Amino acid sequence: MSKEIVQIFDTTLRDGEQVPGCKLNTDQKLIIAERLDDLGVNVIEAGFPISSPGDFNSVVEISKIVKNASVCGLTRAVKKDIEVAAESLKKAVYPRIHTGIGTSNSHIKYKFNSTREKIIEQGFEAVKYAKKFVNDVEFYAEDAGRTDNEFLAKVCEKMIEAGATVLNIPDTTGYCLPFEYGEKIKFLKENVKNIDKAIISCHCHNDLGLATANSIYGVLNGARQIECTINGIGERAGNTSLEEVVMIMRQHDQLNLDTNINSKLLYDTSKMVSESMAMPVQPNKAIVGANAFAHSSGIHQDGVIKKRETYEIINPLDVGVNESAIVLTARSGRAALAYRAKNIGFELTKNQLDIVYSEFLKFADQKKEVKDKDIPVIIKNSNLKSIISF
Amino acid sequence: MSKEIVQIFDTTLRDGEQVPGCKLNTDQKLIIAERLDDLGVNVIEAGFPISSPGDFNSVVEISKIVKNASVCGLTRAVKKDIEVAAESLKKAVYPRIHTGIGTSNSHIKYKFNSTREKIIEQGFEAVKYAKKFVNDVEFYAEDAGRTDNEFLAKVCEKMIEAGATVLNIPDTTGYCLPFEYGEKIKFLKENVKNIDKAIISCHCHNDLGLATANSIYGVLNGARQIECTINGIGERAGNTSLEEVVMIMRQHDQLNLDTNINSKLLYDTSKMVSESMAMPVQPNKAIVGANAFAHSSGIHQDGVIKKRETYEIINPLDVGVNESAIVLTARSGRAALAYRAKNIGFELTKNQLDIVYSEFLKFADQKKEVKDKDIPVIIKNSNLKSIISF
Repeated sequence: MSKEIVQIFDTTLRDGEQVPGCKLNTDQKLIIAERLDDLGVNVIEAGFPISSPGDFNSVVEISKIVKNASVCGLTRAVKKDIEVAAESLKKAVYPRIHTGIGTSNSHIKYKFNSTREKIIEQGFEAVKYAKKFVNDVEFYAEDAGRTDNEFLAKVCEKMIEAGATVLNIPDTTGYCLPFEYGEKIKFLKENVKNIDKAIISCHCHNDLGLATANSIYGVLNGARQIECTINGIGERAGNTSLEEVVMIMRQHDQLNLDTNINSKLLYDTSKMVSESMAMPVQPNKAIVGANAFAHSSGIHQDGVIKKRETYEIINPLDVGVNESAIVLTARSGRAALAYRAKNIGFELTKNQLDIVYSEFLKFADQKKEVKDKDIPVIIKNSNLKSIISF
Repeated sequence: MSKEIVQIFDTTLRDGEQVPGCKLNTDQKLIIAERLDDLGVNVIEAGFPISSPGDFNSVVEISKIVKNASVCGLTRAVKKDIEVAAESLKKAVYPRIHTGIGTSNSHIKYKFNSTREKIIEQGFEAVKYAKKFVNDVEFYAEDAGRTDNEFLAKVCEKMIEAGATVLNIPDTTGYCLPFEYGEKIKFLKENVKNIDKAIISCHCHNDLGLATANSIYGVLNGARQIECTINGIGERAGNTSLEEVVMIMRQHDQLNLDTNINSKLLYDTSKMVSESMAMPVQPNKAIVGANAFAHSSGIHQDGVIKKRETYEIINPLDVGVNESAIVLTARSGRAALAYRAKNIGFELTKNQLDIVYSEFLKFADQKKEVKDKDIPVIIKNSNLKSIISF
């Protein structure tokens, strides 16, 4: 049975780029947009056109060069925003307008000083207005994570009536637990009577470290689009990491879900985004961190050398990483030392290894990492000269 | 009803420190151990004593200074390891030995070239031997995530018979989905007949970005200890982040679970660990990243200025961060500009703000971030001189 496809909506250039320190110029955005198109994302959210002239211009230019993905512009539920977004998307092959409004009590009361009825009305009018310009209109129910499910279902039903093709259910504050977010999506699938006419989209934030799990619980319960960013960048603690949700579906066959992503480009795309934004990826970041495939403890190294699958669930080549590194530190065991020594030409017998290893530990206790160039020195200091020829 | 307490087992100094580039000297470890004790962790895994003389010495010194937490040393299921660990823990007020062995088919076959029966026997002997030295013995079933549940239950039962007080169920490869890991813990709670004599512990890795969610699903299903590290550092993509699981339980009252952690020390502890290891925390890291409480988009800033809870679920003060920053970029709106201008003494009327804002956008499109010192320049360029006195 072929797997069901989950759409990947990349918002690196919108929710990612709006972050302190992440600003890109138009040329940088074009390079990333082209790469996202090659990576195989279904939708590129290119910006928030009304927010600034620079952002407007970027959406115009991105629209011209993207060949396969839909290009999407963000708006508030405001006519002027929608007109400007439509204008910026004119050259896109597949334009999408992303409009919406806050639906939680907190947003309705404190942000809009409005009522539920007026919020629905405003959203409805916005979707209908956007439909005059493009066929593909996505509606976001901002702070859906804290919106009660019955009201949210009513909002969704109305927006589909107005012509929305996608319903974005954001956990704007990153507060939901996975089962809560999953139940919310399930409730919508079961209670919005015209739900078969639209796709439900997960947009999760990572304030509690749960964005990836929440998105997966969303698709397990019927959502078919995930909004995410390269390296999980985004407002505050960021958005769902594209690379994580993609690899979870790829590695877990039993979910019967997949994406169109060419995973071999993930590592390089991560580096490209990190470098253009000067936004570091921590070494222990899942999938794309510098250490994601590095083994340093003796127990782990021994296992990996015997059989890769002992500790690695992902073949590094599948995400574009050349090899899993066996790093030598004071925590490394004999097997790792023997492996690395052999790589540079020293075949050690078991007895030799015992002697060299105790010398290695003295050396390694002084240093963060033992490099290839240190190994001959350690062997020399072990006084094995008589048995190993340099 | 008072909340049930989940024990926090910190392994920053063992699973964290064994990572490429994270090596610490004994003095650095002592400072961190003291802080972890103040933070309120229940167990400090201080090292793997047999792995090197430096590590042995660190466990000895940490044992001397920790007052409240248990101090734990890692071993393989090998007599010599256990003797050395016991020796290193002699001065600890509450010593714990952490011993164990791989239980998945992959580990049994490829790593140990052994059989299930022999593995159980070796684990049983190790726990019994450790009990000769200390009362508190934790057993780890390495690669439990890929061990079939019935065999795992049998292993657990035998280890409790041997005297294990804690059963560590590691998802060593970071492969489990949250519901799978939760079901595993539930299976053990329901099928290990002497399970009430021990605590189940979650030890999750983050290879797919799910360590935090998996640990939470563990405690939701009956585990009562979480093994984690500051900043989520650890082998490959790291371990569960201490700060994330602690704040999830603290923020979600309905879970009826809590820890003894003094959350006000979280941010400072994160910085301390990051700086001593020279291991960067990415700005979008949950809870402790530089941007975790920073708002930059106009929509968000406007909401936060009107009412903090619109976008923030955690009060930054609760984790030791002084205030949520309103960062000015090209994505910022009028409300943020007015707020920051007011902070430095410029009260703008609505009309003035409109003029200054369009000047601000031109300026911001050229820069990553607009600083306080730029604001007077922007106001000056707006030609409002006649109405605002500088």
